[in-house]
Amino acid sequence: MTAPTIPRSHPRYRSLMIRADLAEKMAEGLVVPEGLMAHGRGEAFDYLLGEKTTPEAAKAERAAAAHLLLARHPVLSVNGNVAALAAAEVASLSKSLPRLTVEVNLFHRTPDRARRVADALRQAGVPTVLGEHPTARLRGLASDRAWVDAHGTLRADVVVVPLEDGDRAEALVRAGKFVISVDLNPLSRTSQKAQLPIVDELTRALRQIDLGILRMRRWEPSRISTVAQSVEAPEVLGSALRRIRVRLDRLAAPEPRRGPPRRAG
Amino acid sequence: MTAPTIPRSHPRYRSLMIRADLAEKMAEGLVVPEGLMAHGRGEAFDYLLGEKTTPEAAKAERAAAAHLLLARHPVLSVNGNVAALAAAEVASLSKSLPRLTVEVNLFHRTPDRARRVADALRQAGVPTVLGEHPTARLRGLASDRAWVDAHGTLRADVVVVPLEDGDRAEALVRAGKFVISVDLNPLSRTSQKAQLPIVDELTRALRQIDLGILRMRRWEPSRISTVAQSVEAPEVLGSALRRIRVRLDRLAAPEPRRGPPRRAG
Repeated sequence: MTAPTIPRSHPRYRSLMIRADLAEKMAEGLVVPEGLMAHGRGEAFDYLLGEKTTPEAAKAERAAAAHLLLARHPVLSVNGNVAALAAAEVASLSKSLPRLTVEVNLFHRTPDRARRVADALRQAGVPTVLGEHPTARLRGLASDRAWVDAHGTLRADVVVVPLEDGDRAEALVRAGKFVISVDLNPLSRTSQKAQLPIVDELTRALRQIDLGILRMRRWEPSRISTVAQSVEAPEVLGSALRRIRVRLDRLAAPEPRRGPPRRAG
Repeated sequence: MTAPTIPRSHPRYRSLMIRADLAEKMAEGLVVPEGLMAHGRGEAFDYLLGEKTTPEAAKAERAAAAHLLLARHPVLSVNGNVAALAAAEVASLSKSLPRLTVEVNLFHRTPDRARRVADALRQAGVPTVLGEHPTARLRGLASDRAWVDAHGTLRADVVVVPLEDGDRAEALVRAGKFVISVDLNPLSRTSQKAQLPIVDELTRALRQIDLGILRMRRWEPSRISTVAQSVEAPEVLGSALRRIRVRLDRLAAPEPRRGPPRRAG
């Protein structure tokens, strides 16, 4: 299928371009069909949140930057959708924080897909990518989702899991990791289980975390720690839900209806 | 890709099975990538609505059944997602109301896909399927979405458009049709433009319409007409939004968090 031509003036231009891009990357084997459906769910929540970084999300992103700066073994977990949507942002983050380990973690793992995801990251400029040949397993998870790298996720103290599935996020929390999620659905199990849930679109979130790292990296650890401790998960999730409510109220203001009057039955 | 084995006990079993099925039907050429993303957006709204038919949706479905019973040329429009998700329900409906014309209408039309969608419907038991070789066009629509059948949609008085795009729904209203939409997003242009928007999951909605037809088909037209007139679009959409709001408020109550306490930064 060829992507339809989308005029730049279309009110949903960016969103339609991303959809066309993801469809193409599925054809290339980077993204799986489940990833397209997950993207659709995220889009619906992004729409309800106003399609921009909320002040609460910005605060959570700054706290995430602080946690990453203070971590001994920070890991950023990358799946097919993350590589397809945000390889450039991942590369930039790995430059701003060279200690950050970038690791491929796939729900639907095949050696071929793991290689494609790693290739996409390397092409975007990520110097080292773990996870192509995982060496350890997370406890309490069946299936290929359990595979991790012994030098990456297994020994990590802080793990960023963008667009992660709930089981895996929960297994990481149980394994004692400090889990930072990036997920537009404040009600997803991932958002509910993460110690620091970020409710924002992936590229916006990664750019904000990147900026936070660049701003704080010469600060005293105690000052960074204050920022890391400034956000509570229930507060982040509660405020996202409240924003959705308020926006629904605004969107629900009835608009004039066109077309013929109601048909007499 | 093989679908992962999903245990029946999984809290999202049904939803995961449907996803696996849609992924398979995309591989077969019935569903397009855009259809998978649209399904994800619908899932997000279904989740917010509580994943069941609300009393207001049931009322709209009963009114839809009444409109179909009173119509001279009722048409049910079927795209790839509808055929993939609800071919059996479409077949049942066409048995309960033999006058109902089932017509294939594709946003991303190729002769091959039109044939596949028609084949899926015939295999499920729909006796006659229009739209494989469309003979007319709807005004005010560019692209292949404008194609309709002269003996189907073009002369229809009532058209059911499940999972329809906004432009096409609007063109149908402009063409003087009474449009009944089935769309989980109460804010979509399709829901906003339809004279009778049904905010419910597709298979649930079609089953309810089917039941309504079976219950009312021996009634006096005047009595059926009362049911048809019993629902107003703004009321349907307003109540769906209120349900989402109430559910958000309930869900926003913080749940206990597992895992280690917040890490000292």
